[in-house]
Amino acid sequence: MRKIGIKEIEDISVGAALLGTGGGGDPYIGKLMAIQAIEEFGEVTLLNVDEVPEDALVVPSSMMGAPTVMLEKPPGGEEAIEAFKKLENYLGKKIYGTFPIEAGGVNSMLPFALAARLGLPVIDADGMGRAFPELQMVTFYLDDIPATPGVFADERGNTLLLSTIDNVWTERIARSATVQMGGSTMVAMYSMTGKQLKNSGIPNILDLEENIGKTIRLAKENNQNPITELLRLVDGFQLFSGKVADIHRKTETGFARGTATFEGLNDDKGKTLQVHFQNEHLLAQSDGRTLCSTPDLIAVLDIETGLPITTEGIRYGARCVVIGIPCNPKWRTEKGIKTVGPRYFGYDLDYVPVEQLVINGVAK
Amino acid sequence: MRKIGIKEIEDISVGAALLGTGGGGDPYIGKLMAIQAIEEFGEVTLLNVDEVPEDALVVPSSMMGAPTVMLEKPPGGEEAIEAFKKLENYLGKKIYGTFPIEAGGVNSMLPFALAARLGLPVIDADGMGRAFPELQMVTFYLDDIPATPGVFADERGNTLLLSTIDNVWTERIARSATVQMGGSTMVAMYSMTGKQLKNSGIPNILDLEENIGKTIRLAKENNQNPITELLRLVDGFQLFSGKVADIHRKTETGFARGTATFEGLNDDKGKTLQVHFQNEHLLAQSDGRTLCSTPDLIAVLDIETGLPITTEGIRYGARCVVIGIPCNPKWRTEKGIKTVGPRYFGYDLDYVPVEQLVINGVAK
Repeated sequence: MRKIGIKEIEDISVGAALLGTGGGGDPYIGKLMAIQAIEEFGEVTLLNVDEVPEDALVVPSSMMGAPTVMLEKPPGGEEAIEAFKKLENYLGKKIYGTFPIEAGGVNSMLPFALAARLGLPVIDADGMGRAFPELQMVTFYLDDIPATPGVFADERGNTLLLSTIDNVWTERIARSATVQMGGSTMVAMYSMTGKQLKNSGIPNILDLEENIGKTIRLAKENNQNPITELLRLVDGFQLFSGKVADIHRKTETGFARGTATFEGLNDDKGKTLQVHFQNEHLLAQSDGRTLCSTPDLIAVLDIETGLPITTEGIRYGARCVVIGIPCNPKWRTEKGIKTVGPRYFGYDLDYVPVEQLVINGVAK
Repeated sequence: MRKIGIKEIEDISVGAALLGTGGGGDPYIGKLMAIQAIEEFGEVTLLNVDEVPEDALVVPSSMMGAPTVMLEKPPGGEEAIEAFKKLENYLGKKIYGTFPIEAGGVNSMLPFALAARLGLPVIDADGMGRAFPELQMVTFYLDDIPATPGVFADERGNTLLLSTIDNVWTERIARSATVQMGGSTMVAMYSMTGKQLKNSGIPNILDLEENIGKTIRLAKENNQNPITELLRLVDGFQLFSGKVADIHRKTETGFARGTATFEGLNDDKGKTLQVHFQNEHLLAQSDGRTLCSTPDLIAVLDIETGLPITTEGIRYGARCVVIGIPCNPKWRTEKGIKTVGPRYFGYDLDYVPVEQLVINGVAK
């Protein structure tokens, strides 16, 4: 158990942006929401999963919607409280604590904003170990924990309590409703026990995020390049260094899709890299060869500062390092690959772990 | 208080098809569902609104979805029960009775199917006095009775409990979710007290439907033409007699839209009539002149038998009489016209009551 204040939030938000692999929404907005709530209501208690009673009711606080919509319309705190209260009433049990559903910009910060307002602890675990665009893409789903009953609340005061036969139906119905509800909703779903979170969640993700953020911050203070240290911290591989030559984006059916093309620098001179994203970076290919694919993580970092760059933040001419990070082993199971592997996202290739695609940290 | 058995259902379903003005789904499916439930569970008690305790909780049973979808996939009884049970649980109060939300083919019959299964009475009132395609188009809306909390259940077991700030938001979100849920859902919404139903509903609608059905049935048994008697019964006007020369249909965003063109017969020889529909017949124009428009009722009847013809049932060459019926006065208010008048449906004309458009039952 420890306290999370504004300094910790700053570091966590940077780490969350890196593990968010370009998606999960602008970390800046999430950070501002968390900081505002902590300034108003005080620091938040962070618990390890082991510190949570096994029969406690725990619920992640998240939002559903396209990051590009979120940029124009940051969510307020009331919708999240409304979603939690409605779910609590429906379940007839008090919610003990909250946690992030994913490691991504906004969704990694929302639990702190809500926890500060409601006086709840945040638990150090998430359901992805990264970010993914659809709500059934959580380790809880792999363990058959249902997403519903789940509450979706919009900024106007409309709420929707969904009970579905499986999590793919939740995604389908809630996504369509969210588009109608202005493009984003605050969500209370995947309610579970402390024991279920311990078994199915990915622990210590906030710790890792904070360490990533701290590494980048200290490197900047000492005028050093943090990338080697970052790779060590996340067991990652440098895939490419290059500058952004082209970027295509479109928002359709609630997702930010597109491709960023990089022209090689230094050792990668003469080569190109394409990073395909659907909210998150999902596939990195250099001249037709796959270097890393979902569910492994692909992060785009500033070549000097190591700061992660979101898909909305990628600008023409930016000089970047693209890194690959092995995903949590839970995703490398048959059900995991079926749920979040390349083919699910429409890429016609088999998943190969990133560490098999590189030798000594260099693309084969 | 009286009992409704299979014979009454047969008559009511015919009357509902006439007042349904071509929409509300195929009356045959609704009739079969009601008859099946009555055969299995026994006759249903029908109450006048005056017989319902003022503080009783009453909830209409209805379905949302495109009639053309319904033809392929008739709804089962379990979804309707699930929707009622979820709403009952949420409200924490037992539902006293049910009633039709509209006078239309399927929705006028569903309350009987559900009431038979649950052992509830049906109350003789509805929320339209006709049929309309959107869920805020009820007299309850004119009196600010909220549609939500409302439950939408699909055939698979998915349910959605919606709470919205107004009924237009209910329509918007539920319509989109219903499309995702296979095109049709069983619905429990517009819960209200017995007193509210007495004040805001349109009473004795099932009585009227039964009388219409009986008139058509007896005329057939006696080899007579029932149309003059029908016009007397509904205070209606004959607008046109003709045969179907052309029919255009398309199903988009969950609605069956189209236009039927009639070539005049008898007194109308040499003239044409166009009936525009969006689930229901909404506008009848002869050679550019409006003869009747929503919210007044436009029914297409077989020229010999007087049997009402739905928009799906209109066939090339069919010989028909098209009649206009003044709507309930509640619809002729400013809010009523704004909610269901011609402009709401995209027709660029002011509403003029049908009785001002005809003289002595003949188009001016």
